[in-house]
Amino acid sequence: MKRAGSHTQAVNPVNTAAAADAKLQHAALIALDWGTTSLRAYLYDAAGEVLATRASTAGIMNLPRSAEQGGFDDAFDDACGAWLAQAPAVPVIAAGMVGSAQGWVEAPYVDAPANANALVAGIVHVKAACGSTLHIVPGVLQRGELPNVMRGEETQIFGALGQDADAADNARRALIGLPGTHAKWAVVQAGRIERFHTFMTGEVFGALREHTILGRTMVTPDRPDTEAFLRGVNIARDKGQAGMLATVFSARTLGLTGQLSREQQPDYLSGLLIGHELAGLEAVLTQQQNSLAGQHLRLIGNEALCERYRVALAQFGCTHAELVKHATERGLWRIATQAGLVNPTPQAAYAG
Amino acid sequence: MKRAGSHTQAVNPVNTAAAADAKLQHAALIALDWGTTSLRAYLYDAAGEVLATRASTAGIMNLPRSAEQGGFDDAFDDACGAWLAQAPAVPVIAAGMVGSAQGWVEAPYVDAPANANALVAGIVHVKAACGSTLHIVPGVLQRGELPNVMRGEETQIFGALGQDADAADNARRALIGLPGTHAKWAVVQAGRIERFHTFMTGEVFGALREHTILGRTMVTPDRPDTEAFLRGVNIARDKGQAGMLATVFSARTLGLTGQLSREQQPDYLSGLLIGHELAGLEAVLTQQQNSLAGQHLRLIGNEALCERYRVALAQFGCTHAELVKHATERGLWRIATQAGLVNPTPQAAYAG
Repeated sequence: MKRAGSHTQAVNPVNTAAAADAKLQHAALIALDWGTTSLRAYLYDAAGEVLATRASTAGIMNLPRSAEQGGFDDAFDDACGAWLAQAPAVPVIAAGMVGSAQGWVEAPYVDAPANANALVAGIVHVKAACGSTLHIVPGVLQRGELPNVMRGEETQIFGALGQDADAADNARRALIGLPGTHAKWAVVQAGRIERFHTFMTGEVFGALREHTILGRTMVTPDRPDTEAFLRGVNIARDKGQAGMLATVFSARTLGLTGQLSREQQPDYLSGLLIGHELAGLEAVLTQQQNSLAGQHLRLIGNEALCERYRVALAQFGCTHAELVKHATERGLWRIATQAGLVNPTPQAAYAG
Repeated sequence: MKRAGSHTQAVNPVNTAAAADAKLQHAALIALDWGTTSLRAYLYDAAGEVLATRASTAGIMNLPRSAEQGGFDDAFDDACGAWLAQAPAVPVIAAGMVGSAQGWVEAPYVDAPANANALVAGIVHVKAACGSTLHIVPGVLQRGELPNVMRGEETQIFGALGQDADAADNARRALIGLPGTHAKWAVVQAGRIERFHTFMTGEVFGALREHTILGRTMVTPDRPDTEAFLRGVNIARDKGQAGMLATVFSARTLGLTGQLSREQQPDYLSGLLIGHELAGLEAVLTQQQNSLAGQHLRLIGNEALCERYRVALAQFGCTHAELVKHATERGLWRIATQAGLVNPTPQAAYAG
C-alpha cells in the first residue's frame, strides 16, 4: 500500500501551479463517483495513487443547470476541467446514478450474479462537450418477485474485493454491508456479486424523524447515545415480532411514560431501525443456511454509520465486521484497469 | 335501533328556528370527539338518539387561536355555542386528544386492563368560559417494554362493545381493529380492554409516499387497484421475512423493471404495509395461542379503509370482519350514561 495519506488530498490552492503541473504529468485516470446528491472526482497516477480529489454537490438531481441545458457538462467541467485542460487525453470512468435513466446516459443494469468482467462488458459511453469520453459503469439488477438494484455500490464492492486479489479468501462466500440511505447487503463469492438485499433504513429514519409524530418530541443529543441505540437494537431483535410499524411507536410511548428522554429518542429510533434491518437480514441468511453469528463481514461507507452497524452487529453475535476504506476509489480504479483504460505500473496500489 | 339515518344529521340551515328549538328541548347530552386535526360534536336526546352533529377542523393541533389565547374555548363555542345558548344545562362529555398533555386539560391514562368503570373513574373536568363543564374521558395505557397508549379509541371500543349488551358474546375474547393513522388492535374480554397494539401504518404510508423516493414514481389511480393492493399484501405475508424496510423498496424496483405501473404503486405500497401490519399482528396472536384465521373480529373506522382491511384480512384466513358503525357516538353515550351524566329513557338507543 503506497497510498497511505493520499486519498483525501484535495487540489490545494496553496500548491504552486508548478506542483500541480508536475502532478498532472503523471495523470493516468480520472474517475467519478457521481450520485444523486454529490459528485466526487479522483485523479490517479499510473500506479493507482490518488493524486487529487474534487468534490461538489452537483449530483444528478442537483445539477447547476438542467440536463437539457448542459447541466452534466457543466458539472463535469467544474469538477475536472482544470485537470483535463492540461491532460486532455486522460481516460475518464464514472459510476453511480449518472448511469441511471435520469443520468447523463443510461447504462442498463447487468444481471446478478455479476463479476467485474460483466460490469466492464456493460460499460456505456457518453461524449462530453469538452471532448472527453466518459465510460459509465452499469449497476446490477437481481430479478425476482422482489427485484433489487444497485448503482455505485457494485463498484465499491469490487473495490473491497480487490483487496483479496487472488487470495483464497476470494473463493469463500462472504457478506458485505453498505449502510446508508438505502443500505445494501451483498453476498459475494469467487469475485461475483451473487445476490443482494436493500433496506431503506436511512431514508425511512429520515422520513419518520422529519415527517411523523415521532420527531416532534425528539431533540438531537450532543453526542450519540450508545445506550439508547442499543436499547433500540435489542428491542428489534428480541421483541420485534410485531414488526417495525409497531415497535417504532415505542419511541413515542417510552417518552410519554418518562422512560426515554427527548435526547435519547433519536438514537433509540436509529437502533430500532438498524435492529430491524439486521433481524431481517438474519431471517434471510437463515433461509440460506447461514447466520450473522460468527460471520466475518465487511462494511463500506461513512465511518460513524459503519461504527453504529458494528455495535449493532455485535448484538447479533457478529463481532468481526471490518471497515473497508477507500472502496470507491479502489473499485473505480479496478474496473478501469479491467476495462483496459489504464495500464497500471507493476507497483500499482490497487492491483487485483 | 331507533336512530337509523340520524347519525350524520348536521344542523341544517334550511331547518326553521322553531324546528331547531324543538330539538333542543329534548337535548340530554353533548358529546365531543376531539382529536388532533378535527372536532366532531354530537347532540343527543334522552333516548340516546343523535339529534344534530357539528364538525370542524379545530383539532387540538389546529385551533383557531393558541390554547393560551383561549383557543379551546373558541373551538368549543364555535361547535356547541348555539346548542348551549338554548340548553345551557346540558352535560358535556369529550374524548380524544383533548385530554392529552397538549389538550385542554390532561386526563391521565388509566392502566390496561380497563373496563368502562375505570374510564369513568378517570374522567377529568374542565370548566369552559361559557359556564359548561366538560367531562373528559381518559385514554388507556398498557405498560411494559413497549408501552402502548390510546386516546379516543377506548371510547370507540366501548361503543362497539355496547352492542353486545349483556350477551354471552361479551365474555368471549374478541379482537377489535381500528385502522387509521395509528392503527390499533385491541383484545377485549368481559367488557375489558385486555391489551392492545399500535401500528403506525397510516402515518408511515404517508411519510413514505410524500417524503421518500418511493413517491416520486407514483401516480394516484382513478380508483383503488385491488389487484396491486393484494399483491402487496401477499408479498408481505409470504415474502416479508426481511421486514418492511426491505420489501418497500420493491415498490420502486418493480416499477424500474416494468412490472408495476406508476398508477399501481400506491395501492401496492398500501398492501405491503397493511400486509406487514397483519403479519405482525398474527405473530403476536400466535404467541397468545391465537390466530387471525377463523377469527370473528370487528373493525371500526373509515369505511373505505376498513374495506381494505377486510380484503387483506381474508388473505390471512379471516373472513369474518364486521364493520361497526357509529362506534364513537355509541361509546360517548355509553360512558356518559355510566358516569351518570344522563339518565337514559328505557328505549335508549345505545343502552348497554
